[in-house]
Amino acid sequence: MAEQEKLILVTNDDGITSPGIRALIEAVRPLGRVVVVAPDSPQSGMGHAITIGVPLRLNQVEIFEGIEAWQCSGTPVDCVKLARDKILGRKPDICVSGINHGANHSINVIYSGTMSAAMEAAIEGIPSAGFSFLEYDYKADFSLPAKVAREVTERMLQNNLPAGTLFNVNIPIVEEKDFKGLKICRQADAKWVEEFDERRDPHGKKYYWLTGEFKNRDVGEDTDVWALENNYASLVPVQFDLTNYKLKKELEEKWKDL
Amino acid sequence: MAEQEKLILVTNDDGITSPGIRALIEAVRPLGRVVVVAPDSPQSGMGHAITIGVPLRLNQVEIFEGIEAWQCSGTPVDCVKLARDKILGRKPDICVSGINHGANHSINVIYSGTMSAAMEAAIEGIPSAGFSFLEYDYKADFSLPAKVAREVTERMLQNNLPAGTLFNVNIPIVEEKDFKGLKICRQADAKWVEEFDERRDPHGKKYYWLTGEFKNRDVGEDTDVWALENNYASLVPVQFDLTNYKLKKELEEKWKDL
Repeated sequence: MAEQEKLILVTNDDGITSPGIRALIEAVRPLGRVVVVAPDSPQSGMGHAITIGVPLRLNQVEIFEGIEAWQCSGTPVDCVKLARDKILGRKPDICVSGINHGANHSINVIYSGTMSAAMEAAIEGIPSAGFSFLEYDYKADFSLPAKVAREVTERMLQNNLPAGTLFNVNIPIVEEKDFKGLKICRQADAKWVEEFDERRDPHGKKYYWLTGEFKNRDVGEDTDVWALENNYASLVPVQFDLTNYKLKKELEEKWKDL
Repeated sequence: MAEQEKLILVTNDDGITSPGIRALIEAVRPLGRVVVVAPDSPQSGMGHAITIGVPLRLNQVEIFEGIEAWQCSGTPVDCVKLARDKILGRKPDICVSGINHGANHSINVIYSGTMSAAMEAAIEGIPSAGFSFLEYDYKADFSLPAKVAREVTERMLQNNLPAGTLFNVNIPIVEEKDFKGLKICRQADAKWVEEFDERRDPHGKKYYWLTGEFKNRDVGEDTDVWALENNYASLVPVQFDLTNYKLKKELEEKWKDL
């Protein structure tokens, strides 16, 4: 008997009409049956938000030839939850999210809707990966990111990885001849130094735009930021047990009198 | 010279008018100068969302006697960013978030706006804690959670804790005579089993409400869920380096051919 065809859930946070998700679909469609469930509008910066206060809409759309696709009014995490409960019928073999227009390395994993969608699937025990391309441009050339996404997805499907496996993959802006390949990394200790741009509306009232500068305070050569600066694509295995075991141990000593 | 007065940033995700934040302000005001920056409307389930696509509003309000307070149109994370950049003038000595109406133990740390606000401050190097009370009722009696919040905040201010210290504190529904105290825990391996409630609007179109059942698959007696079930308040030290170092090491062996 032939092996069962792999079921691949594709989602993102830039919205179902973004070029990045189209590139990802094309990259992984040779590997199994692809089903797309993605937001109907851009959801960047949504983190692990879920929709509680308003009901969700879900509509089938025909925008990818030969591919079952649904758009959802909610967040990337909502998309994964709805896909699992209302669309797929069985647990998918993998969930891939992206390809995001813009970086999600280092601390950005926490703000990223792309990664939150993948994390939601991983919590469900589905091996998952988020892919992000450092190029923000809508018209970016996705051929290198697509190759990387294809290779990672194929490896994930072939390997027997632990339940809850979750990868954060970022792809640099680099010509293919200079690309050095994929590097397994840790999350760089970096952060955003925020400045809000203060303006006044036509009625004289203040409002603020979030803006900021990215600061890498990590000099390690095993980080995702280092890899990307050196023409590698970075792959960080991500966990969702957020317990700080080191500090836990320290406190158990220090706060014995609790 | 007298020691500088401690500067305490208070925020939450239920909104500035919720009883929980009022209880937290009262609990910590004897410990220093309190400044409140909180969302102007409920933001539950917002995870680590930030506001990118629309500008933010920030208005000073007088609803807590003798306390400087600001309401913000954004998410809990936006509140912390704005507080730091536009209001406080200096890095606060601590950030406390809550007291949330409802649990944020185990995997809920990932979906929680309460915890995301605290995490944002911790990324900035500010020792931070989120407090959540298992009672959802708007009219809940916050006296026990307030006592716990006061004790934890006081300990955090007195102890020289590492930069980036972040605590997830949950308080059970229990009579004070049966309360067993605070217990340092790890995050339980639990998840939500989602079911969407499918309905039809007056025009016959489907819509969905998120609903779900909480499943704890962790039998350990060192978890937050166990502590809460046994009349302890739980304190989980939380990290924001999400690298899965164990899997990273495995992959470095397994995927040598990269």
